[in-house]
Amino acid sequence: MAPRNFRENHRSKGSKAGRPPGRGKPPARQAGADSSHRPDRSGRSERSSRPESWLYGLHAVQAALANPRRRLGRALLTPRAQELIGPELLRRVRVETLEMDAIGRLLPPGAVHQGAALEAAPLPGLDLDELLARPASGRRIVLVLDQLSDPHNVGAILRSAAAFGVTAVVVQDRHAPPQSGALAKAASGALDLVPYVEVVNIARALDQLAAHGFWRIALAGDGAEPLADAVPAGDVALVLGSEGDGIRRLVRAHCEAAAFIPMPGAMESLNVSNAAAVALYELRRG
Amino acid sequence: MAPRNFRENHRSKGSKAGRPPGRGKPPARQAGADSSHRPDRSGRSERSSRPESWLYGLHAVQAALANPRRRLGRALLTPRAQELIGPELLRRVRVETLEMDAIGRLLPPGAVHQGAALEAAPLPGLDLDELLARPASGRRIVLVLDQLSDPHNVGAILRSAAAFGVTAVVVQDRHAPPQSGALAKAASGALDLVPYVEVVNIARALDQLAAHGFWRIALAGDGAEPLADAVPAGDVALVLGSEGDGIRRLVRAHCEAAAFIPMPGAMESLNVSNAAAVALYELRRG
Repeated sequence: MAPRNFRENHRSKGSKAGRPPGRGKPPARQAGADSSHRPDRSGRSERSSRPESWLYGLHAVQAALANPRRRLGRALLTPRAQELIGPELLRRVRVETLEMDAIGRLLPPGAVHQGAALEAAPLPGLDLDELLARPASGRRIVLVLDQLSDPHNVGAILRSAAAFGVTAVVVQDRHAPPQSGALAKAASGALDLVPYVEVVNIARALDQLAAHGFWRIALAGDGAEPLADAVPAGDVALVLGSEGDGIRRLVRAHCEAAAFIPMPGAMESLNVSNAAAVALYELRRG
Repeated sequence: MAPRNFRENHRSKGSKAGRPPGRGKPPARQAGADSSHRPDRSGRSERSSRPESWLYGLHAVQAALANPRRRLGRALLTPRAQELIGPELLRRVRVETLEMDAIGRLLPPGAVHQGAALEAAPLPGLDLDELLARPASGRRIVLVLDQLSDPHNVGAILRSAAAFGVTAVVVQDRHAPPQSGALAKAASGALDLVPYVEVVNIARALDQLAAHGFWRIALAGDGAEPLADAVPAGDVALVLGSEGDGIRRLVRAHCEAAAFIPMPGAMESLNVSNAAAVALYELRRG
């Protein structure tokens, strides 16, 4: 269940600095250094003016502790959680020993924290072009999430993305759930494994993906062909829409193909994270 | 997104009457008639002594209204939800028009009700043997959930089960989430589409499935072969374990094979509902 190894995770915080959409690429950040995390100069990004937030759940906390790019605060842990995580990972942080209930009172109601909570700054941002320019072997897959807002779904998608070796998960900055709490818990550590790229404009990100040679497929119930038939060799960007609204028209117009998952039963759609997992399985099967 | 048609749903409530596990098959209930729903005579089943519970969410409410086997109470709806559901389906129930907030106050905190809540009794139970004895065409798939307790996961699995035409979802009565609220919402109407069978003893249910010719596959990270290679022609029972504990040893011993989903990435496991969706896709692909 535990992650096998840890990769860097990046986030294009720079793109949140209040620039209008489509006005060119955000300034490149020095994503490799912890010092690169700082509030936006405009002061307009609420998230970056509140750098610390809580991660919880054993896998999410372990993955953040093992990620050297994470800037961390306190860890609140039960004795049992400390035992499970081990002293090696905990050397980086100040540990406060608390009972389950006391940890729960500091978190949103219903948070399944498993006796582990960790103050952590969001990961530094990453530029999509820079990420796509890196050398890679085998088929690259990028997931593009068009205004998915449910943190449990986005978290589960990150987890599947890590399991199937996805190159990046791209979201729109103003319409993505916060990178903490419920999302990180559902991701089960994958937030520290998969590059999670926030962009201003999804359509523009799809143009960037095309420029890097990606074939762009919209996953939609009314797609023209089954996903298995819609995938050529090479790199693929797979676009998923929200459960309520689907993929926006403009975003879909930036795809070469629209494909569906064949479902012989009485229901026409899957939960979006389930659909993402099936699609990733199909893309890796070939 | 809406369900295409509605099938009966059954539930072996009779198996909750306090009998010790493995003492033979529960008394067959007259599953087809609404009158068959009544509290257990023993009075020991908490759920059956409280026959009404709330369903919420547009799809869940619509599916229950369209299911003639459902015994229904009041519907609490916003004007907009009434419009979306339509007068035809609402003829069966007493409708109370309320605002979003007022509906929310009657439901658990955070319930995503979309302006629709419906009092509904759990569906009448079904006997597994009786269900498996029915004539069927094509490969039958039965999902067996070994002590999965998260209602969101079980609900999403029901939704995928409906999408991929599963014959039944089997759960253990004492370790399954209630058939209402969060489960029904996540199932998005599938609770009224897929036979959901509560049994006393999972191992015994697997024996029954074997007697009906099902090949029993445990889905497990340490399985012997990829799922695609583990599936012979014919009917298949797929067993899924909880995220924390996996499949119990005794349950796994009742399977012919253990198979895994190949994951080339850095993460070793998927969310269990994601794993179920991938497995169902693979089983229907052949």
